[in-house]
Amino acid sequence: MSGSRPSGVLTGVGVGPGSPGLLTLEGARVLAEADVVFAPAPRERAISLAAEIAAGAGMDASKVRTLAFPMSRDREILSEAWREAAIPVAEALDAGLRAAFPTLGDPSVYSTWIYLRRAVESLRPEADLRVVPGIMAAAAAAARLGVPLVEGDERLALLPLPDRVEELDAFLPLVDRLAVYKIGARLPELARWTAERGLDADARLVVGVGLEREKAGMLAELAAQAEGYLSAALIGTGRSGTGKAR
Amino acid sequence: MSGSRPSGVLTGVGVGPGSPGLLTLEGARVLAEADVVFAPAPRERAISLAAEIAAGAGMDASKVRTLAFPMSRDREILSEAWREAAIPVAEALDAGLRAAFPTLGDPSVYSTWIYLRRAVESLRPEADLRVVPGIMAAAAAAARLGVPLVEGDERLALLPLPDRVEELDAFLPLVDRLAVYKIGARLPELARWTAERGLDADARLVVGVGLEREKAGMLAELAAQAEGYLSAALIGTGRSGTGKAR
Repeated sequence: MSGSRPSGVLTGVGVGPGSPGLLTLEGARVLAEADVVFAPAPRERAISLAAEIAAGAGMDASKVRTLAFPMSRDREILSEAWREAAIPVAEALDAGLRAAFPTLGDPSVYSTWIYLRRAVESLRPEADLRVVPGIMAAAAAAARLGVPLVEGDERLALLPLPDRVEELDAFLPLVDRLAVYKIGARLPELARWTAERGLDADARLVVGVGLEREKAGMLAELAAQAEGYLSAALIGTGRSGTGKAR
Repeated sequence: MSGSRPSGVLTGVGVGPGSPGLLTLEGARVLAEADVVFAPAPRERAISLAAEIAAGAGMDASKVRTLAFPMSRDREILSEAWREAAIPVAEALDAGLRAAFPTLGDPSVYSTWIYLRRAVESLRPEADLRVVPGIMAAAAAAARLGVPLVEGDERLALLPLPDRVEELDAFLPLVDRLAVYKIGARLPELARWTAERGLDADARLVVGVGLEREKAGMLAELAAQAEGYLSAALIGTGRSGTGKAR
């Protein structure tokens, strides 16, 4: 089929951070109307979390085809796994199917969709690929906590916890709020940094955003009793921007 | 009623950037079940854009009560307008109503909800206030353009175009992508900055995100033919982060 345009459509659908209610109307429609739904899962799980959320929003789970992935951080191994995963997806496009790929949060933010898209594009450069955006963990965390992310002329930085937590210092004079992802087991390290910079009073955390086990509160308190997996920290920097519309 | 907890509930609902399909299932439900929907509009408009989007997703428009706002950037005038707007909302809460307030994009990001919430909280500190997150313009823009915002260990800054465009320079070594809002009539200025920094090849723009007149493309091309209102620019900084999971 190389060179010709496959007649199917593949849509990456952001299902939001966990609660099926945070799927968009359009995302739910695309998943409901899809002929086949591809979803990635580590080899140990039967169904991906994203597909579970989609099923919670009414999608027929029997049309899910799980793409099994090795648990690895080796880029060569992952790249090869994506190349392999893209093959059945490309074949579905060649067959004229409407395919969908649900992904946690938003498809443009730290998602597996980015890798699948690239692998499918390299197999079928002419394929019709679409994206339905989703609710980001940072937005869900702010909603849960009842605090703004940015208002007036404020600035937000969204980033994974850096390898050296001190790299966050460079952001303090530039942005008003940090949304820190991928904290994992290093939550105590982030809490220490926050306390040492005197930012405790405006540092909040949501653990397991959107999941049943979700916990929300002050970072300093939660750091002592929770782990940071699937969590988002929202930390005000105290930057005194001028001209804030407060 | 001061001191007692009002029996109603007020929910800020993010309706996304423009297309009714980008409302969440939960947001659509809250708006459908609300007894009254408050929506802000400039004095010149009959209905707010956020309420129009909600109506497009099936909400009964007859329960909208428009809160009229002066077109002003004077903080004292705006503050006073919010204080006044909060009065009927507080009364609805006292009466035990389920009230909703639709707002463009996400309620935690540059939204009118932030101001209304604060004004209602100062009138009724014990009120039950909730938030349903919404799709941010940056996520909708990335989806439309088919490009990632951040992947692997990349970092994103989300900010309004600074008064001096050169203030963006400080972000170049720190983040991988800028999402620039509130560009308005200064689109040519941003395009010039982008060209001078050699960032043209990875600088994109969506004008009128989610609206019927939406246009998406390269920033350099669109800057010559469009205005920047309700737009989002996505600019890659070319920062060479180490350890990117590409």
